[in-house]
Amino acid sequence: MSGVKAEGVSPLSSYLPFWQKIDAAEQAKLTASAQKRTFHKGQTVSGGNECTGLFVVCSGQLRAFIFSETGKEVTLYRLLSRDICLMSASCMLHSLQFDIQIEALEETVAYQIPTDIYKSLMETNAAVANYTNELMASRFSEVLWLVDQVLNHRLDSRLAALLLEEKDLAGSNTLVCTHEQLGNHLGSAREVVTRMLRYLQSEQLVRLTRGKIEILNDEGLKALAGESLR
Amino acid sequence: MSGVKAEGVSPLSSYLPFWQKIDAAEQAKLTASAQKRTFHKGQTVSGGNECTGLFVVCSGQLRAFIFSETGKEVTLYRLLSRDICLMSASCMLHSLQFDIQIEALEETVAYQIPTDIYKSLMETNAAVANYTNELMASRFSEVLWLVDQVLNHRLDSRLAALLLEEKDLAGSNTLVCTHEQLGNHLGSAREVVTRMLRYLQSEQLVRLTRGKIEILNDEGLKALAGESLR
Repeated sequence: MSGVKAEGVSPLSSYLPFWQKIDAAEQAKLTASAQKRTFHKGQTVSGGNECTGLFVVCSGQLRAFIFSETGKEVTLYRLLSRDICLMSASCMLHSLQFDIQIEALEETVAYQIPTDIYKSLMETNAAVANYTNELMASRFSEVLWLVDQVLNHRLDSRLAALLLEEKDLAGSNTLVCTHEQLGNHLGSAREVVTRMLRYLQSEQLVRLTRGKIEILNDEGLKALAGESLR
Repeated sequence: MSGVKAEGVSPLSSYLPFWQKIDAAEQAKLTASAQKRTFHKGQTVSGGNECTGLFVVCSGQLRAFIFSETGKEVTLYRLLSRDICLMSASCMLHSLQFDIQIEALEETVAYQIPTDIYKSLMETNAAVANYTNELMASRFSEVLWLVDQVLNHRLDSRLAALLLEEKDLAGSNTLVCTHEQLGNHLGSAREVVTRMLRYLQSEQLVRLTRGKIEILNDEGLKALAGESLR
């Protein structure tokens, strides 16, 4: 199937703030080129070099991360419903010299817009280019927040903040995730995370069971998280 | 004095890659609004909230850094001749939620372009907006490099790489800088840097004298810096 349903109002119109600033032919071109995609949990959305296109997230959750030279992962930011993933189209920007990986953290539905279609629109339409600027500035801010975190906060505090964030996203006190996944978010080794989780368990803040982490004391985690909370 | 000399060719024309893609009236407006500024070593160019304008660096060196919540500084990147400082006009971008500080590391001459002039040009001209995108992508890449460094490299290695970088920039084996300044680049405390420098001295890689660091062994520092070298 090529293109999302174009009868009546395009489904893209409510997601792209510049929609009213592009003409009908441009709207039609975007709508015709966009594909509705479904990614299952853990699936790679974009491998960094691939320049797969932009993704407009309808539901679910994506994670942007980098691999360091030593092969360790660290999460840069997450993309939720209505967020737009620019880094999967990073080849649009010559100056972006870093491979950013994107994966689905849960079943995710997104519209995929081909890089060349978006790029040609951006090159000729200032509204689209300025919107792209805002998208990048927003991700840039999140990465600066990460720099601050990594330099200034202890791992126990960052882990407590991450557990509370995961709880909010899951809408449940029971998190289904591995210690390795948490380590990948924090840029830490699994062993270090396991040790820290056991410490949190000894403080009766969490309970660890096979493949699951149950949050027992929100207030205690909040106190530990302190300024690491977003 | 208002505006840089506008007879004949504008001095901005060779610095702004989009010059040929804006019309004569826009060129004249930019030229008339730009101010040639000189900053002495250590002077604050932009304090984060001020939105001073864009700076086009002609000579010298600027440093962009953030203050963390705990008051510690960390250098994000440096701007040399022909670089353009966008973050001193960060109010142009609503999504940039981080105060980035800019200071002169040595006597620096730069053209200052008022934020509102640049912003109105960017909003209407796709070439200017796309150039701004590339600028931001380039700084974003440098900050991602920093994240990788901080997470994956030991301080001794990062300090060795920094000393070699400073040597290249100074064009001399003798660096005139304080341990605190090095600490601010690395996001580390002065005491930690002093301890590490003494270790490098004991390895005969550097010689420390009052206010100065002499580099004795380039190859030794390179080996220690390893993958921390840019």
